[in-house]
Amino acid sequence: MTAFVLIAHGSKNPKFQEIVLKVAKELENKEDVKRVYVGFLMGKPSIEDAIKKAAANDDILVIVPFFIAEGSHVVQDIRRKVEEVVGNRKKVVYAKALGDHPLIVETLYQRYLEAVRE
Amino acid sequence: MTAFVLIAHGSKNPKFQEIVLKVAKELENKEDVKRVYVGFLMGKPSIEDAIKKAAANDDILVIVPFFIAEGSHVVQDIRRKVEEVVGNRKKVVYAKALGDHPLIVETLYQRYLEAVRE
Repeated sequence: MTAFVLIAHGSKNPKFQEIVLKVAKELENKEDVKRVYVGFLMGKPSIEDAIKKAAANDDILVIVPFFIAEGSHVVQDIRRKVEEVVGNRKKVVYAKALGDHPLIVETLYQRYLEAVRE
Repeated sequence: MTAFVLIAHGSKNPKFQEIVLKVAKELENKEDVKRVYVGFLMGKPSIEDAIKKAAANDDILVIVPFFIAEGSHVVQDIRRKVEEVVGNRKKVVYAKALGDHPLIVETLYQRYLEAVRE
């Protein structure tokens, strides 16, 4: 089976983690998604924990960065940690960061409108 | 008039900035958006430059964080910088981070599907 591994930066503000976990729960309602494993670069569960759990249960790991764009965390840090944990023992696929997806443009516009209307 | 001020973290990877600037351009095509001022916490143009330009042209500044969630950058750093530059000389409105907006859940799901299909 295929694992959805959602990796986020993390923050000292616990609200950050709450939001990531809520998004992960909602992703589990999507078609073709069985379980979403969550890992934080800074925080718990760690990215290592998420990868280990996913690798114990699934054959293909899809690493989805919950990051704005391909900065050094996405391009280097996440990949290095994944390779440290699973090496070439599993098939690993890397998804793109949120980036310039049309829905991101729309989300920022909606956040702007909400703020203007308040 | 109302200024759309898009604030992003920035990265050593120039692709990060490119994506933010592309998103800003696309936001300028939206109804009720005249111009999007972009500022980076780490990088150029700085958040100070973006706020100064917006304040020179507009009466109301809508600060839209291009961040995943309300971590310390959004809750503290951005607000401190905005207050340093404009104080109470302008009306400032703060939009929410991307967070758990339904379109974010959908974007992450699309990024997952793209990666699985590759």
